[in-house]
Amino acid sequence: MKIPSSSVSRISLYYRTVLAIKDKKVISSQDIALLAGFSAAQVRKDLAYFGQFGTPGRGYSIELLKKELKKILGTDREWDVAIVGVGNLGSALLAYKGFKHQGFNIRYAFDNDAKKINKIKQGVRIRPIQALKQVVKANKIDIAIVAVPHEAAQDVIDMLIASGIKAILNFAPRRPKAPEYIELLNIDLSIELERLTYFLQRGKR
Amino acid sequence: MKIPSSSVSRISLYYRTVLAIKDKKVISSQDIALLAGFSAAQVRKDLAYFGQFGTPGRGYSIELLKKELKKILGTDREWDVAIVGVGNLGSALLAYKGFKHQGFNIRYAFDNDAKKINKIKQGVRIRPIQALKQVVKANKIDIAIVAVPHEAAQDVIDMLIASGIKAILNFAPRRPKAPEYIELLNIDLSIELERLTYFLQRGKR
Repeated sequence: MKIPSSSVSRISLYYRTVLAIKDKKVISSQDIALLAGFSAAQVRKDLAYFGQFGTPGRGYSIELLKKELKKILGTDREWDVAIVGVGNLGSALLAYKGFKHQGFNIRYAFDNDAKKINKIKQGVRIRPIQALKQVVKANKIDIAIVAVPHEAAQDVIDMLIASGIKAILNFAPRRPKAPEYIELLNIDLSIELERLTYFLQRGKR
Repeated sequence: MKIPSSSVSRISLYYRTVLAIKDKKVISSQDIALLAGFSAAQVRKDLAYFGQFGTPGRGYSIELLKKELKKILGTDREWDVAIVGVGNLGSALLAYKGFKHQGFNIRYAFDNDAKKINKIKQGVRIRPIQALKQVVKANKIDIAIVAVPHEAAQDVIDMLIASGIKAILNFAPRRPKAPEYIELLNIDLSIELERLTYFLQRGKR
């Protein structure tokens, strides 16, 4: 069964919602919906993709839901992450506390700027891009974040794939190519802003 | 007619695809699809939401398509943008060249750290958060980017809304609340990583 990626994003939000509840043991889909900002029907539909967690009419056990959602999202374990490109954005991502909190440890960083090599940022030593293949392979790293200029993105992504990376979060604009078996997620910040101006523009018509 | 927000994001990608073509005057939906990484049917469906741009069997005029897509996205004009929070992420966003390129000018920056006030970053003077309301109102700024720690996000967003901001791109995790008439787009970077681990995890089952 193909589960829509928007459901997966919502599961992430439900997980955060449930995580923030401290004073109750059971929660209804209505309450999750209210807290997360969706409809109860949407919550039930999204959760149903992954099995039967609740008792009809009695709601969901918060403890169980936390555990199950974590398992679904693959964050019931820690993940080592490599970042390529330690410019402004790469540094921001290295410092981003939300990653660590969710079990994502950026333990490896690479750059091609000789001035940055061997510097320590957020406790991570910056290595030369030439070391990428060997380090990724030797440490069996599954996930990489790409924060290089767009001219370099495709080369870096090809290098990561050749090194055995399985999933890539790419911040370089323009869509790089990757084979089907690689999970490649592109985040283009101008596209996000265009979604806003699109709505601003529509409103004025 | 309700146009899905995924169509709007794809329109952004088609625009970039068409923009990159230098040596042709006409393009087919098949070619846009191939270059942008979607199906031709998807391309035709997305474009059809906004009118009839092409001649059946003859394809789309690239010149016209560029102009129309820009208009749809609201990037046929320049937008002044304010950023709140000039930490690691805020600095990265200030330096992000893609924004400028698409007509988004981050011309105003705010922070609550006394050490940062009046410093110039990327040509933008950092102002105290106390000046936000007056500056946003006086300059009729429509769009703000929020890059503050999550504890501060809701307060900042409330302040922006009270100042007349119409659209917000928020990077603080957890979903802040905003009235319906405000376009609020949340980017939570851990959620993006969870979409990757979700797929990694599923692959292993």
